[in-house]
Amino acid sequence: MSRARVPERARDAFPDRLEAAVRRLATPCVVGLDPTPEILPARFLPRAPTPARLAEAYLRFGRAVVEATAGIVPALKIQIACYERLGWRGLRAYEETLAAARRAGTLVVADAKRGDVPHTAEHYARAHLAPGAADAMTVNPLAGPDSLEPFVRACGETGGGLFVLVRTSNAGSSAFQGRSGDPDPLCERLARAVARAGRAVRGRNGWSAVGAVVGATHPREIARLRSLLPRSILLLPGYGAQGAGPRDVVAAFDRSGFGALVVAARRVLLAARGARDVERALEKAARAFVAEVALAVAVNPT
Amino acid sequence: MSRARVPERARDAFPDRLEAAVRRLATPCVVGLDPTPEILPARFLPRAPTPARLAEAYLRFGRAVVEATAGIVPALKIQIACYERLGWRGLRAYEETLAAARRAGTLVVADAKRGDVPHTAEHYARAHLAPGAADAMTVNPLAGPDSLEPFVRACGETGGGLFVLVRTSNAGSSAFQGRSGDPDPLCERLARAVARAGRAVRGRNGWSAVGAVVGATHPREIARLRSLLPRSILLLPGYGAQGAGPRDVVAAFDRSGFGALVVAARRVLLAARGARDVERALEKAARAFVAEVALAVAVNPT
Repeated sequence: MSRARVPERARDAFPDRLEAAVRRLATPCVVGLDPTPEILPARFLPRAPTPARLAEAYLRFGRAVVEATAGIVPALKIQIACYERLGWRGLRAYEETLAAARRAGTLVVADAKRGDVPHTAEHYARAHLAPGAADAMTVNPLAGPDSLEPFVRACGETGGGLFVLVRTSNAGSSAFQGRSGDPDPLCERLARAVARAGRAVRGRNGWSAVGAVVGATHPREIARLRSLLPRSILLLPGYGAQGAGPRDVVAAFDRSGFGALVVAARRVLLAARGARDVERALEKAARAFVAEVALAVAVNPT
Repeated sequence: MSRARVPERARDAFPDRLEAAVRRLATPCVVGLDPTPEILPARFLPRAPTPARLAEAYLRFGRAVVEATAGIVPALKIQIACYERLGWRGLRAYEETLAAARRAGTLVVADAKRGDVPHTAEHYARAHLAPGAADAMTVNPLAGPDSLEPFVRACGETGGGLFVLVRTSNAGSSAFQGRSGDPDPLCERLARAVARAGRAVRGRNGWSAVGAVVGATHPREIARLRSLLPRSILLLPGYGAQGAGPRDVVAAFDRSGFGALVVAARRVLLAARGARDVERALEKAARAFVAEVALAVAVNPT
């Protein structure tokens, strides 16, 4: 690699690219692609599900999701854990699904939740934010603010984006991230660190490339975390299957309808299970998701 | 997968397997395998380092490390980030390196630092602790105690082990994990959660399959965390290149010399850089590492 020049930045900053896509499609909705044998429509499921055959099935299903949702949602969030479970063949299917989304003009958030000491974090940043890889990735900040630096640097160089875990959507998330009665809960310290890290990588629109993951299952905390993260785009998982509804996410958005992404996975993917026309069913479910969120959040065209 | 029966446990519990290996070789030393283009000896480095060629080079180098250290150290810690950086070909090289270590009788800790909400954590647990995968893996607990459950369940079923991040070795680790003056720092809350989670999966020797990562760079905290984690094996990174020495790790061990693993990566791997006989140089460096730690920690044969 010693002779490679620092590549010229091939694309605009992530917040600018994301905003353009969100305004064009007039929705902050993101479909989550989390393939499992249980979620695959019957026509995709191999009879003898070896890792090789499942990886092929995930790729075919992923392409169907890409086709069905292109031009409806600005981005897909792909859950790498589902692919990693199948070993290297799964990771190859992930990479090919990512390439299909890029060809379709859909942005991709690699839901990888990677994080490590700085020396090692550098490898994860380059793996997932290199040109040709994802548009943005999720990151786990537990190791400390210095562990975010390689990811932030990669964003500056490649036009990538981050969503750093601040408040996860699971039932047990309060144990470490926030305790009632704690005057300075970890989620708020994480939010302040994310805001600080994000100052160095702003788009032309003023939004930072360093966003945060805040579970839509904590509606009462969204406004507080939004105020600590005034320039960070919030990725809101937990909508639908995990119980949050359209009203729960409103506080994450600015008056123009930008500033956050609402993610639903199972609610869209499961619509395909019994369907005769899988792509049609996925498209219909994605449109229903978009329409439901539009009742609460109106995105201005500019 | 629906017709698969729950497999019978193919191997003893991780703490029993690890103790047998540590006592047989009379050392708690673990070599870290973190391949990068900068660390590869010249004879392994391809002239035009494409991901495919680098993946092949990492596999050849990994096999050399396995051969050179077999019968000297009980386990290798393989840094998945280095392989993941190369994409699916890298992950294939990781899997083949892991298989080489198994054939050589060396245990493998997959340093993956995975973690997610329970539904997703399940995929990571199955990816890395399935029969044929690693003997143990590192896990990030930020999402909450419920996010550890799928990993703990997998340990019970497959005889795998965990090392949960409690106190990382990097300079910025105190920002979130521990603050001077905080009466209840996060690292201690994490330690108590690890101790609780580990009660369900004990070996015949009384040690838990759920261990913890505690940076050797925090020698003054090791004794305190040991007392909160009386039955958890501690994985101690940060030895050597990151500044910790043999005296810094003593408090992690019991009187018989068990209870912790000391990890060094660069200090061993870099010995091969200018060497004419790479395997000989790696073997010599591994033996020097073992001898140095033996000055501070004596492992009883039984």
